[in-house]
Amino acid sequence: MTPAAVTRMRREIGQIPATVERILAGADEVEAVASTIRRAAPRWVTIAARGTSDHAAVYAQYLIETQLGLPTGLAKPSVTTHYGATLDWRDGLLLAISQSGRSPDIVAVTEAARAGGAITIAITNEDGSPLAAAAGSVLRCHAGRELAVPATKTYVGELAVVVALVAALRPDTGLHAALAAVPDVLRGAEAATERWLEGPGAAAIDLLAGSDRALVVSRGFNLATTLELALKLKETCGLFAEAYSTADFAHGPVILAGADIPALAIRPDGPLGREVDDSVVTIERRGGRPIVIGGDEVRDRTDALAVPVPASEALSPLTLILPGQLIVEATARRRGVDPDAPVGLGKVTLTR
Amino acid sequence: MTPAAVTRMRREIGQIPATVERILAGADEVEAVASTIRRAAPRWVTIAARGTSDHAAVYAQYLIETQLGLPTGLAKPSVTTHYGATLDWRDGLLLAISQSGRSPDIVAVTEAARAGGAITIAITNEDGSPLAAAAGSVLRCHAGRELAVPATKTYVGELAVVVALVAALRPDTGLHAALAAVPDVLRGAEAATERWLEGPGAAAIDLLAGSDRALVVSRGFNLATTLELALKLKETCGLFAEAYSTADFAHGPVILAGADIPALAIRPDGPLGREVDDSVVTIERRGGRPIVIGGDEVRDRTDALAVPVPASEALSPLTLILPGQLIVEATARRRGVDPDAPVGLGKVTLTR
Repeated sequence: MTPAAVTRMRREIGQIPATVERILAGADEVEAVASTIRRAAPRWVTIAARGTSDHAAVYAQYLIETQLGLPTGLAKPSVTTHYGATLDWRDGLLLAISQSGRSPDIVAVTEAARAGGAITIAITNEDGSPLAAAAGSVLRCHAGRELAVPATKTYVGELAVVVALVAALRPDTGLHAALAAVPDVLRGAEAATERWLEGPGAAAIDLLAGSDRALVVSRGFNLATTLELALKLKETCGLFAEAYSTADFAHGPVILAGADIPALAIRPDGPLGREVDDSVVTIERRGGRPIVIGGDEVRDRTDALAVPVPASEALSPLTLILPGQLIVEATARRRGVDPDAPVGLGKVTLTR
Repeated sequence: MTPAAVTRMRREIGQIPATVERILAGADEVEAVASTIRRAAPRWVTIAARGTSDHAAVYAQYLIETQLGLPTGLAKPSVTTHYGATLDWRDGLLLAISQSGRSPDIVAVTEAARAGGAITIAITNEDGSPLAAAAGSVLRCHAGRELAVPATKTYVGELAVVVALVAALRPDTGLHAALAAVPDVLRGAEAATERWLEGPGAAAIDLLAGSDRALVVSRGFNLATTLELALKLKETCGLFAEAYSTADFAHGPVILAGADIPALAIRPDGPLGREVDDSVVTIERRGGRPIVIGGDEVRDRTDALAVPVPASEALSPLTLILPGQLIVEATARRRGVDPDAPVGLGKVTLTR
């Protein structure tokens, strides 16, 4: 492929490591927001987001609950916008996540929470946006302008900002040092995926490109990765891609697996990885041949795309999504679809 | 069809009105739990559930937030079971929903919340279950034994218990009187759907039975209905069925719609119904012909299955799921699948 033919989506995936580096360099901005949170001492957290940012919200729920111990939930914006309910926001922290900062319902929830007494923090790539104006504090994704319709660098930017914020609130956890190592891990994951796509992965892309359905499974922190990868397969490639926690998968959707259904398993190293292996075996018993995306523990497996991963599983969603994004981009091109502008989609959706 | 050929799933759908009547008759049990909640005055709510019960949890989030004003979120059980996080449960209400009461991770979250100072309430069809033993209070679904693998009467039972509890906490809302009208509305919806299935609906069942994919859309309270209907299409019929809020649908998955993709739109009367209409038009522009399941406002539409609905949109998920359940049962039979025991599924899944 000549350089001129490189898609915007592909270029923007390549800009992810630098995005995380800029977030690391903006530690003062993060520390100021962390101070605000420490002073207010919220008792619980609500996260408002839509689409790709909703998957960053799922990740944030796991990270906040495991590292800060604050019960966390995801908002249903229509409770505020359509039903006009007044929630008791006192002692709460409202975290709004939106790449564009322009979704009216996310702005409305932020305004309601702020008026009701919550601390409100916006994570956005657009610091001049209505959301940034509505929130008490703003944390920027530092991703630069994103031109491709499928969000890639802003998604990882949102995750990295969540890590930076939680790291500032819990400096004892080593999360900040772990985040500092992520840009190089990302570069390694990008290189390993490129090699795989030119080798054994080519057959996997053929299978995905020829299918109209797909399954994506994982568990724990990487539930966010499955949701985001499935959405990308849907909106960029037009596949009916179903994302499942391995726990929910066993409850019924296992019936969807089969020989003609491409499956992707996001497999972190460690105990949860072995649980993902159980789902892989279940899918294989039904005739499927899942692609396992993982770290050191899958290095010798012929069914796996092994990539560098952070030392901490908690940070693995920041890097395990990157192979998925590259797979989606390659699948779209293989299908003859322009990944930068899938049919029927605009970059910003104005949901009320 | 001779009586002997009637499936368990079909019989159990027919038992839904009586289930709701038994829940109405158990008002004392509900009032006692409501008193416990009033005394403890929780500040926020977390709901723990999996599979079908997770959709009852989505409904409960909407009802609790709109009627009680308490910020509500859905638990990620692995935060407790896999990552061993200790959340600050003080001032919280943990609502655990499980038909069988036997999912170890839901039991574990309930035990952790109770030990951490939350009020804990289990909604279950099995009052001798581990979950019932773990929770501080138990509310029964009164559905009788459910034999078919796809949960139908226990799902509506879970929703009805949630309504009964919220009604007891907010006697000023008229919710209790509205719930009292639901059994007759359910009987009317069952009859209307039967007539439709024998008439214009037969072609819709043919389309669904011949497809391997489907879309289900709605918004607000009936987001729960879309999620539950899509899961039933997956686990009972093997379709890759995607459920979307009309808000999220516009963010990308609209690309999945097309002439060969059956689509179902759950359309409550009122303002949100008109928003669902927008998604119907969008799907039609892409060549699809959605089946609209709604109330009085769709009575004259040729694309619609019109059924009796409760006067309050807030209660419509209790009755709008019933046409969906009957459609799933008919589709499974049309595909030659036994809806009572889809391949690969057991009734209880023991997730840790």
